[in-house]
Amino acid sequence: MTFFSKRDLYFQLFENHQIVELTQFVYFKDHNKETFEFVLDAAEKISTNHLYPLLIEMDRNEPQLINGKIKVHIGMKDIIRRFGEDGWINATFSYEEGGQQLPNVVHQAAGFIFQAANYSASVFPFLTTGAANLIRNFGSRELIERFTPNMYSGKWQGTMALTEPDAGSSLSDLSTTAFPTDNQGIYKIKGQKIYISCGDHDACENIIHLMLARIEGAPLGTKGISLFVVPQKRVPSCKDNDVLTQGIYHKMGYKGAPIAHLMMGTNDSCEGYLVGEPNKGLTYMFQMMNEARVGVGMNACAIGTAAYYASLAYAKERPQGRKLTDKDPSMPQVPIIEHADVKRMLLFQKSVTEGALSLLLYCSKLSDLIHVKNQQEKEDLSLLLDLLTPIAKTYPSEMGCLSTSAAVQVLGGAGYTTDFPVEQYYREARIHPIHEGTTGIHGMDLLGRKVLIKEGKALKLLLGEINKTLEEAYSIPSLLEKGKQLGFYLSVVQKTFGLLIKKSSTNTEAYLADATLFLEIMGIIVISWQWLKQGIVAKKALDENKDPRGFYMGKIMCLRYFFEYELVKVDGLSKRLNSDDQVTIEMKKEWF
Amino acid sequence: MTFFSKRDLYFQLFENHQIVELTQFVYFKDHNKETFEFVLDAAEKISTNHLYPLLIEMDRNEPQLINGKIKVHIGMKDIIRRFGEDGWINATFSYEEGGQQLPNVVHQAAGFIFQAANYSASVFPFLTTGAANLIRNFGSRELIERFTPNMYSGKWQGTMALTEPDAGSSLSDLSTTAFPTDNQGIYKIKGQKIYISCGDHDACENIIHLMLARIEGAPLGTKGISLFVVPQKRVPSCKDNDVLTQGIYHKMGYKGAPIAHLMMGTNDSCEGYLVGEPNKGLTYMFQMMNEARVGVGMNACAIGTAAYYASLAYAKERPQGRKLTDKDPSMPQVPIIEHADVKRMLLFQKSVTEGALSLLLYCSKLSDLIHVKNQQEKEDLSLLLDLLTPIAKTYPSEMGCLSTSAAVQVLGGAGYTTDFPVEQYYREARIHPIHEGTTGIHGMDLLGRKVLIKEGKALKLLLGEINKTLEEAYSIPSLLEKGKQLGFYLSVVQKTFGLLIKKSSTNTEAYLADATLFLEIMGIIVISWQWLKQGIVAKKALDENKDPRGFYMGKIMCLRYFFEYELVKVDGLSKRLNSDDQVTIEMKKEWF
Repeated sequence: MTFFSKRDLYFQLFENHQIVELTQFVYFKDHNKETFEFVLDAAEKISTNHLYPLLIEMDRNEPQLINGKIKVHIGMKDIIRRFGEDGWINATFSYEEGGQQLPNVVHQAAGFIFQAANYSASVFPFLTTGAANLIRNFGSRELIERFTPNMYSGKWQGTMALTEPDAGSSLSDLSTTAFPTDNQGIYKIKGQKIYISCGDHDACENIIHLMLARIEGAPLGTKGISLFVVPQKRVPSCKDNDVLTQGIYHKMGYKGAPIAHLMMGTNDSCEGYLVGEPNKGLTYMFQMMNEARVGVGMNACAIGTAAYYASLAYAKERPQGRKLTDKDPSMPQVPIIEHADVKRMLLFQKSVTEGALSLLLYCSKLSDLIHVKNQQEKEDLSLLLDLLTPIAKTYPSEMGCLSTSAAVQVLGGAGYTTDFPVEQYYREARIHPIHEGTTGIHGMDLLGRKVLIKEGKALKLLLGEINKTLEEAYSIPSLLEKGKQLGFYLSVVQKTFGLLIKKSSTNTEAYLADATLFLEIMGIIVISWQWLKQGIVAKKALDENKDPRGFYMGKIMCLRYFFEYELVKVDGLSKRLNSDDQVTIEMKKEWF
Repeated sequence: MTFFSKRDLYFQLFENHQIVELTQFVYFKDHNKETFEFVLDAAEKISTNHLYPLLIEMDRNEPQLINGKIKVHIGMKDIIRRFGEDGWINATFSYEEGGQQLPNVVHQAAGFIFQAANYSASVFPFLTTGAANLIRNFGSRELIERFTPNMYSGKWQGTMALTEPDAGSSLSDLSTTAFPTDNQGIYKIKGQKIYISCGDHDACENIIHLMLARIEGAPLGTKGISLFVVPQKRVPSCKDNDVLTQGIYHKMGYKGAPIAHLMMGTNDSCEGYLVGEPNKGLTYMFQMMNEARVGVGMNACAIGTAAYYASLAYAKERPQGRKLTDKDPSMPQVPIIEHADVKRMLLFQKSVTEGALSLLLYCSKLSDLIHVKNQQEKEDLSLLLDLLTPIAKTYPSEMGCLSTSAAVQVLGGAGYTTDFPVEQYYREARIHPIHEGTTGIHGMDLLGRKVLIKEGKALKLLLGEINKTLEEAYSIPSLLEKGKQLGFYLSVVQKTFGLLIKKSSTNTEAYLADATLFLEIMGIIVISWQWLKQGIVAKKALDENKDPRGFYMGKIMCLRYFFEYELVKVDGLSKRLNSDDQVTIEMKKEWF
């Protein structure tokens, strides 16, 4: 079963984003195209042999909470052990930390393969990487030595413990409390956390929570939040640390990964270890969250990709109906891929998932460049990445729901049954517009914060990058029209933003009421840009008679599709954003 | 738990569509507003007391095939018996047939309540009505007397048996065969059928299939298809009729209703009884299918409505975050319904579901008028209803997926869990763009057939109706702008259609390639029209100080919402339809 295209992934990495450039930098100097390919081959192997075979089984046999402990699929123990042994969890970290100094963009590309094979299974090691990353970046040497080695090896699970019953989107309302003890750096933790992914399970020996809590007496709001390491079992004593698994959430999809409700300090004996300085927890956590957000975009893109290939295989094989120009019932039926409407649904999926993948790898490469570039360049690249993060999280997530829906539709009745995997992809995709910040939150992040920083410098940087691509397109006759089209819409968006920004100081509510629509527009523009980039690369490859020709033709057709069917959506969206009708603000709750 | 609004349903029936007018006709003369309300009260009672309580249980305990027999939820027996005893199955039929001569529009309104309460449970009696309707309209007196009484009473289940492994969307490729016997009208049936809703279960004593098959030697294609009654047990002997339940489909949602794979004639002893004349089966079946298609739109609308009310209740109660203008963390959080973006998601659901309900009841009333009007009027009304049918089926179905998705999004993480019903609604909604003709098929039906009949007479009739509403809006100052806006988009659509139609004779493939998009545009236009109608009624009510004022204000706000956020989508869609880029036709299957 095909769940991704290696050909496309290589195109993205080596032709479109030219990631081999990274090996010019000292940190990545031991790598080259061959080592990257070796890593991706290894990812494909583990995915094909170990992850994909459990895809459906893990959906059908959900984790269960039994006697206070969550039991997950028996195969997860082996999978996590493999991820640890093969060095996936700390692959991007430095040699001194036992890592491989692998570029993040290659790690993300490998992650894309894992996620396309089995999203639930891929989540376990991914979370551990994020949690370990927080400890190594902000924790004391002592915390690093005590916790990270067993996380890198896959022996222990890492988590991000943020959400509480009264604090989901509103992190400032966290109420989990840390009480100082006589031992410096050690606190007694009391409170509860909900929706904690991999918050408890029996495939690892210990669970290490990176948990936000408020030190007793700390200021209200976001300024009083600190970050703690809270293990399920104390280290090295293995003593129970009073973190109780109060419940497990059963959910629509993404069922293989357990989501826990945790209670800390029921017996007043839950120890937490302060990471970094007090009251800086949210700043630290946001470092991980920003990476995790691009990661969520990748998850959605990967699920959409797997669904696309499942529906493509079906469309090529399933005979049904005849060409409109030849309806003779005595002739055999044609495969449904011959019908324009089915090709439309496949092009939609292909353009959404490959467009998103291009953006996500672009963002991942940015984070590598930020890691190795000098201070001035680092700052600009960081601004650009910060601006793109809500888009890279949201576009693939929102469109992943529609793209997997198109996969279901291609299969028709068969797609609605559990005989094919597309219904599972449809259910799994739905989580992504929700977790790591809902779409609404990211709209506010983009319009309420990111575009305003440094007088809009980030937006200017993005426009500069897009304009570079436009200039290139203008110089290629067959892409001139596409370049002009994107240029036109770019000016529409700039005008729209110009009108909006006038409200930002006088009427905040009106300014932000349609932030979600602004985010949607920016997603379409940015993905159009990524398609124009891909089109330019493909056009050159075609001119050079590179093989396989059909692959590059597919890229050109997708560019055309995206501009014909998706880019034009900016018309309606911008018309709304330019309107003064404040209907969503003026609507009263009593009128619903 | 609120799963629909009786206030809105009454508004639609009595204020918006003025259905009491129907009682002027002889067939409906015994009815009045009070009898209609009595019927709807009864529907609400059975829904609240019997259907809704099983909603989640039926999802969690799917039907199973055990020893060749499908077992459904144990509560279904009682529910079907009630539907029979209370006269729901044949409510619209004549007194002579034991019916109540109830207008179809009231029956559909009652169905809307049932479906909003528990879609799976509502399907059983709904299918029986459709099947019985075919027998009474086209069957012999003998068939009617033999089969329909026990269908009306709920003792027997009726089904529509169309789809085969090689003939889903392409009915012309049916291969189930009927072999003549020495007894006139009796055939031996051989073949298989898949995806047969309620095709077998243990809540009824017999299953009566209305089955399409090809009489041996009949012409190929659609012209050789006949309609048969094929009971699971012969009547009156109760002898097994060689209809084997070969399998059951497990599916993403809509789990309470069993979907069967049937084998007929494995032992050469499956008897089928010809309905009407040979080779006219598809014509007969389309009568039922057209009604069923409006019915599917209603199902989708009902599920969307239940999801809307579930998310509305949550939004009113769930505190999270603060108003943008007052972020003091020491103040309590506000219910999320205070946030503009949440109101946007609620207005989206409200405008989609109430807009769809308005259209569906309009169509249902049309079918009542067709029933009682004279020949000339009947013909025009039939043309109009035929044109609206693909729209009434598809708009609620496609938008139901997005609307239930918005409900999930309002709940955030909670919405993704099985602790709330919205994830179930999301799964259930997804079947509707598939069954009773996929969206693609309906696009072709609309653009490839309906708009062409009688030189576009149906479209002219529709435009005439819309223009009447526009004229009315132009005379109301506060609605003048909305009228103009719809008028503008109507001209956009007419221009677009004018361009398209030129291709219809020269390049069929190009003409129909984007039929789905044309259908989408027509959906938006028609629902905008329904909102303008509702807005006019609401404005008059507000001028007359009718109660409750908030209800009518909600209608005005929804009209504004729909025109601001949905109607503008015609811009992008029409731009695409006006383009000459034939990307979906030119794309080759090798390039994917």
